Amino acid sequence: MTASHDKPPLRIALAGLGTVGGGVIRLLETNAGLIARRAGRPIEIVAVCARDRNKDRGVDLSRYPWEDDMALLAEREDVDVVVELVGGADGPALALARRALAAGKGLVTANKAMIAHHGMELASAAESAGAPLKFEAAVAGGIPVIKGLREGAAANAVSRVYGILNGTCNYILSTMEKSGRDFGDVLGEAQALGYAEADPSFDIEGVDAAHKLAIISAIAFGSRVDLEAMEIDGITRIRSADIAQAAALGYVIRLIGIADRDGEGDGLFQRVQPCLVPRSHPLASVDGPTNAVVVEGNFSGRLLFQGAGAGDGPTASAVVADLIDIARGVDTPPFSVPVSALETLPAADPGHRLSSTYLRFTVTDRPGVLAEITAAMRDAGVSIESLIQHGRHEEGGEVLVAMVTHEGPESGVARALALLEGSASVVEPPLVMRLLG
Amino acid sequence: MTASHDKPPLRIALAGLGTVGGGVIRLLETNAGLIARRAGRPIEIVAVCARDRNKDRGVDLSRYPWEDDMALLAEREDVDVVVELVGGADGPALALARRALAAGKGLVTANKAMIAHHGMELASAAESAGAPLKFEAAVAGGIPVIKGLREGAAANAVSRVYGILNGTCNYILSTMEKSGRDFGDVLGEAQALGYAEADPSFDIEGVDAAHKLAIISAIAFGSRVDLEAMEIDGITRIRSADIAQAAALGYVIRLIGIADRDGEGDGLFQRVQPCLVPRSHPLASVDGPTNAVVVEGNFSGRLLFQGAGAGDGPTASAVVADLIDIARGVDTPPFSVPVSALETLPAADPGHRLSSTYLRFTVTDRPGVLAEITAAMRDAGVSIESLIQHGRHEEGGEVLVAMVTHEGPESGVARALALLEGSASVVEPPLVMRLLG
Repeated sequence: MTASHDKPPLRIALAGLGTVGGGVIRLLETNAGLIARRAGRPIEIVAVCARDRNKDRGVDLSRYPWEDDMALLAEREDVDVVVELVGGADGPALALARRALAAGKGLVTANKAMIAHHGMELASAAESAGAPLKFEAAVAGGIPVIKGLREGAAANAVSRVYGILNGTCNYILSTMEKSGRDFGDVLGEAQALGYAEADPSFDIEGVDAAHKLAIISAIAFGSRVDLEAMEIDGITRIRSADIAQAAALGYVIRLIGIADRDGEGDGLFQRVQPCLVPRSHPLASVDGPTNAVVVEGNFSGRLLFQGAGAGDGPTASAVVADLIDIARGVDTPPFSVPVSALETLPAADPGHRLSSTYLRFTVTDRPGVLAEITAAMRDAGVSIESLIQHGRHEEGGEVLVAMVTHEGPESGVARALALLEGSASVVEPPLVMRLLG
Repeated sequence: MTASHDKPPLRIALAGLGTVGGGVIRLLETNAGLIARRAGRPIEIVAVCARDRNKDRGVDLSRYPWEDDMALLAEREDVDVVVELVGGADGPALALARRALAAGKGLVTANKAMIAHHGMELASAAESAGAPLKFEAAVAGGIPVIKGLREGAAANAVSRVYGILNGTCNYILSTMEKSGRDFGDVLGEAQALGYAEADPSFDIEGVDAAHKLAIISAIAFGSRVDLEAMEIDGITRIRSADIAQAAALGYVIRLIGIADRDGEGDGLFQRVQPCLVPRSHPLASVDGPTNAVVVEGNFSGRLLFQGAGAGDGPTASAVVADLIDIARGVDTPPFSVPVSALETLPAADPGHRLSSTYLRFTVTDRPGVLAEITAAMRDAGVSIESLIQHGRHEEGGEVLVAMVTHEGPESGVARALALLEGSASVVEPPLVMRLLG
């Protein structure tokens, strides 16, 4: 009935057989018929490779030819596309990617770190070779955000792209919110449940979200990927008291990656930081390990894409969507325009940004502390909208002072914090979060 | 710097210069540079046509060649793609679409009625001619839902697709909810604000949502468009009392289009009906003229796409996204698989569906009415979860009785309603809504 078997299959080699690799195999097996119909031809695994051949992955690998040397996947005559699911910005993943593209093979990857660090080089190599390079799974798991930006919103000048890009952080923050428990406690639970890695630092320090933001920001603004210019802040310092304080003001706390060209001049602003999100905003109701991305276009208005940000099923769904695109002959430049057309945008000066800022100080409980802080704000020209001194004493006789400023240039807040630096009353660096406007 | 001027422009003819047509011209002018970069070549308007040449459309048409006879747009040698923005399922729009495809030209349209009624014929014609047919703007305005289904979720077997597909109804329902005002009152306001047409029947009767659902359901399930098999119910009978009752139970009322293959057998179920949506569901917070579509895939899990469902800017954004796809050489089958591969699915019997049902009766205020209704429920094997008789009398001494059933086969509710048919106590046909599970 269909023409799917008239065309030769798309032959793929799979490198890396962890959670996602196993998911890709399961998906290609489970949905083989409909994939062949939609892709116009079958997608066939002709070689697989991973570090440990004997590990139980819950899928039957015996039917797939095994390659011991990963690099050789890129040399095989019978491979059209290499699927890189090894991970890591450099090392074997990058070596394989380079060799595959140099050999004129397509490359599909879920590797956000590699694309954030080497995306420009790889996209150039793909262009030179006339080979497709796709990485939908690198950002926001199963949500077609890259396709949404590169194609769905392609007619628009994007003013702002932002969202919840890390499921681990979102799980931790929304669980802290619901349970009133503290960060370390919830992190431990997230690790036990598999929502957080044994070494969670890439997630909770904001680095993983930064990789993803760098990629979508390049596509949205037609700019070269620039990870260096990004401000990155994680969620490790957020206490349940901050969440309670935000709630009292009508906000929830979410780790938000945001990129825009709203500011002064022509610079590109990129920041990953916990933010206070108004409860009426669609991102405020994004709970658990869910991801969501908002794209603001000059004609489309606000578009929201939401779904599972990680996991074997959703990530495999994105990997195979890329493969179906390739099988269908769909090949758009990976960053929406050719690499040579990407601009090098200077980093915007955040000092000019108008923000309302949440500041939380941990201070010694003695007279004059509040006067010292509020005087610094006054001297820096920062206007305070609300201020709460928590009655509850923290360990060591410390108390928390939280405030929200009126909207004003971020440089004012920076000046105030500089004035307070070295103060004997302020025990640790203040926690700074912005209100999502 | 870019290669966008090495390739010949994509030459388009624009038929219909209403709100959306004007938006497309404005968009192509405003974003010309970035569109050329992303599309790899400029998109150029080589002919325009509308009923009235002299109407003021807020855009300068003098630079575009005018064609008096719309049908001739399809014959012009210098046209690559015809953009049909005339509207209407048949008539000039359909004639133009047929001629354009027959002449081997691409067709981009925002015309949901035409695609719902003639999509199979047009897709076949496009295949025969080897010409692209695209209609992203026909569903959910600027939201790339069709692309999301056809490409983003292409790796998945979809179990269910559902959402808020009509901005007019959603504006009316969410405004009734916030203001406590009644349907007719809010409809009048919506008309004054431009959110509802002078003749709003296509919107408020659910027909417009049905057109859109028929299209995405065909793509999601690989089935031929089948508008005839769809149950369609509008919002005209919803009263503020229903909204208050739903609110008391933790629900909001939204007009939901839903298609699934969850039921018994292999049939396809398609229904447009006001539903009770739990407040915790992402669709419950979709207010005003916004649209949102949920796709549930067997690997992706739940994907949500949200944004402006109508308006010149968002709709133009979708039209031009289709044009950029064509300029880039991206051509996938309009319904994801070739027309010959689409299945003819029987309509699923709703009687087998397990639902919780909201029933609201308007009854005469006399003894024994409640006993009559509850006896009918008992005799039909329907179990009542909650029941409220509104104290407030409606006009003519009538009162409202609202109930929610426990989950059970919909055939039970149908039996109970049949038992009550002809009852002297029940003044008008009961209002039936399902709870979104």
